[in-house]
Amino acid sequence: MSELLASLRAAIGEPNVLTDAIDTAPYLKDWRGRYQGEALCVVRPGTTDEAAKIVQLCAADDVAIVPQGGNTGLCGGATPCGTGEVLISLTRLNRVRAVDIDNNTITVEAGCTLHAVREAASVADRLFPLSIASEGTATIGGNLSTNAGGVQVLRYGNSRDLTLGIEAVLPNGQIWNGLRGLRKDNTGYDLKHLFIGAEGTLGLITCAVLKLFPLPRSHTTAWVAIESPAAAIALLASLRSDFGDRVTAFEIIDATALELVVRHIPGSRQPLPVIPQWQVLIELSEFSASDSDADVIKCLTHASGVQDAMLAQNETQRRALWRLREDISEAQRIEGLSIKHDVSVPVSRIDEFIHKARAELVKNFPGIRVVCFGHIGDGNLHYNLSMPSAIENVKLIERDGEVNRVVHDLVNELGGSISAEHGLGQLKRDEIKRYKSGIEIELMQCIKHALDPGGLMNPGKVL
Amino acid sequence: MSELLASLRAAIGEPNVLTDAIDTAPYLKDWRGRYQGEALCVVRPGTTDEAAKIVQLCAADDVAIVPQGGNTGLCGGATPCGTGEVLISLTRLNRVRAVDIDNNTITVEAGCTLHAVREAASVADRLFPLSIASEGTATIGGNLSTNAGGVQVLRYGNSRDLTLGIEAVLPNGQIWNGLRGLRKDNTGYDLKHLFIGAEGTLGLITCAVLKLFPLPRSHTTAWVAIESPAAAIALLASLRSDFGDRVTAFEIIDATALELVVRHIPGSRQPLPVIPQWQVLIELSEFSASDSDADVIKCLTHASGVQDAMLAQNETQRRALWRLREDISEAQRIEGLSIKHDVSVPVSRIDEFIHKARAELVKNFPGIRVVCFGHIGDGNLHYNLSMPSAIENVKLIERDGEVNRVVHDLVNELGGSISAEHGLGQLKRDEIKRYKSGIEIELMQCIKHALDPGGLMNPGKVL
Repeated sequence: MSELLASLRAAIGEPNVLTDAIDTAPYLKDWRGRYQGEALCVVRPGTTDEAAKIVQLCAADDVAIVPQGGNTGLCGGATPCGTGEVLISLTRLNRVRAVDIDNNTITVEAGCTLHAVREAASVADRLFPLSIASEGTATIGGNLSTNAGGVQVLRYGNSRDLTLGIEAVLPNGQIWNGLRGLRKDNTGYDLKHLFIGAEGTLGLITCAVLKLFPLPRSHTTAWVAIESPAAAIALLASLRSDFGDRVTAFEIIDATALELVVRHIPGSRQPLPVIPQWQVLIELSEFSASDSDADVIKCLTHASGVQDAMLAQNETQRRALWRLREDISEAQRIEGLSIKHDVSVPVSRIDEFIHKARAELVKNFPGIRVVCFGHIGDGNLHYNLSMPSAIENVKLIERDGEVNRVVHDLVNELGGSISAEHGLGQLKRDEIKRYKSGIEIELMQCIKHALDPGGLMNPGKVL
Repeated sequence: MSELLASLRAAIGEPNVLTDAIDTAPYLKDWRGRYQGEALCVVRPGTTDEAAKIVQLCAADDVAIVPQGGNTGLCGGATPCGTGEVLISLTRLNRVRAVDIDNNTITVEAGCTLHAVREAASVADRLFPLSIASEGTATIGGNLSTNAGGVQVLRYGNSRDLTLGIEAVLPNGQIWNGLRGLRKDNTGYDLKHLFIGAEGTLGLITCAVLKLFPLPRSHTTAWVAIESPAAAIALLASLRSDFGDRVTAFEIIDATALELVVRHIPGSRQPLPVIPQWQVLIELSEFSASDSDADVIKCLTHASGVQDAMLAQNETQRRALWRLREDISEAQRIEGLSIKHDVSVPVSRIDEFIHKARAELVKNFPGIRVVCFGHIGDGNLHYNLSMPSAIENVKLIERDGEVNRVVHDLVNELGGSISAEHGLGQLKRDEIKRYKSGIEIELMQCIKHALDPGGLMNPGKVL
């Protein structure tokens, strides 16, 4: 092992091979504090060639590799499971290689933060629409490896849909340059889709060509009290029918989620006089000079189930509404531990999921508290469970397996997914075997074995 | 072989196993008449189970399989290369299994024509945006297998982007049910993307869940004479900045293409007094009650390089403009043979491609006639070459290898693709080896070998 360390130091420079516990600590614990890993060392390549060299050296010594971006993942996908692995942190590989305005593309290295990519796009008068709460730290390599979603998937799709080409280091240390900036290219298997969402188990994404979009001139943002999730879905359909693709976000938030934000986040205020059982945060992106306020109000007035509504009158109000949505995770963290789910079902089954899940949970775990919010337009809910009393909550957390069973079985019954946007990592690696068909698991193993026969890329994750 | 035929007849019924030359002829020649194949038989399964049974029987006897949809492909991907293959025609597998309006999805079997899918969506007040000239015959299975593009990719993406889930028969005859109707599902490798665009070389797509969109209420359609391709690209940027996603089509057409249509297609008329060197057909999709005519005219008036323009005043005029675009292929067919290219480059390199390609071709093939049209907003041009004189044209066609070299080398130099939307099939299977990196070809072969170790799925195509 000391020979490998020496080779790594020779390849990328001594300061970029970390072995001291103090130096490596930030890389070895996941953001939620659920997983504590160990590693032979943490290496920080500054170029794709250096990353390839690291993989070659590890492969030659049969040493496994754990790739890591901003370390903001929620399923432990970037934390080592073993003890003697090499953790590759890609945060130094962070250049914007090119912005092509006419082609509406940006070419960025894996270690760029999502925020940096959005800023570089904005400077070029373009939008990179991926947006998640952790974007100041999360890197684009991690976003692609987990196929991150966020609040604008409704219009713009997931990370996968925003990617035209990638560069990757393969498990054998070869570099595949697939950095094509083409909207259309039908010359064989679309290999980039194998690496996107694979959580580093098939190779290391080092760079990507991403799609850019016209930058909206303004937004129409509304906070709407609504009778039920079913009414919310009907409202979404009517908004899309009237405004088409201008509807770029449609988020549902239940009363409990908003109450936690108002209670725990300093300076936050509920937007309407009363906190309703359900509310939606709606945003339209505007390209023409005029806004749609009047038309949106008309649409809301005629929609059934709308109980109250307010429109942001300026950018400050708009940001305040979005902060309420974005602070839900932090408010929950302050409140205490909870059992979290990131699930999706067909949009047409959302209402059924919400009703059946609550009924079943209340029956099995009396007094349970549900925090339910998320991207209802994509059929994606964050569905988090706890007990209001701290002592009761400890007991509930101990029964997380039983709780998961209720939620995940129902999701599966409704044709849904137990990980809509966070990936599998180590957290759901075993759980997924319960719900994916044997044929699909075999297909995944077949691909894994073909590309990474030694099983050296991020072992213990996904599969 | 007679034993296999007997088993096939037993499995799917005698009338669905065709062996008479008269019966099999329509399946064995490709649409453009370039390839004439042979087959042991043509089989027509009516269900996915029957399709799986056929694959199992063929696999047991080591007999290769050629899948075919509407047989409208342009690269010979659905015509057998060998002699003893079984051709599976999927046209009987043509039910619409489900339409889920709230989820905005439609579940259709592979043999549904694209037209039937669009109609079923329309009945549900939804848009299925894939649109190609052959949609009355082309099937959705073929569209997915070749990742078909068309005139609305600018806003809605290629077939791949419109697909949420698929069902496929694997090379070993197992059925993989990946018919999920989810916008978000990050539970491992996204296997559907392997089968989409693989031209049947990794398995048989039998069914798909496709995305639906709000149906536009109306369209704003303009025919614009424009100074140059560079001016067209600048105009597109300014339209997108003003109208965002409402810009759903942006097609360029050169003078020669339009002249051929006016000459050969009865009833067709040039829309403007003079046929300009370059023109673009622009369409905006409207969701609100009011149209954008005035705003579009304002945008065109201020854009540089716009020489003249007309807006369709009603649906009849709109259809007439689109027919001019769609009839280009037929007009060329009537005119005679030509050397066709379906290329893409980054949008920012389109102008360079058009200038350099013409200069190089004129130098090497004096008198050559260029027909250039296509989806300039996607960087995708159909670039077809012939000689005005029939005798000279025969000589040119004989030199197609040299012509391809000029066009494809330039495309490659500009970071483009030699098959933007038609696939590789048998036509470009060898040509692509010249331009794809060895590493990428090896990756493709690695996947092929892993999923289809016997090499029985559509041999001689793609790889």
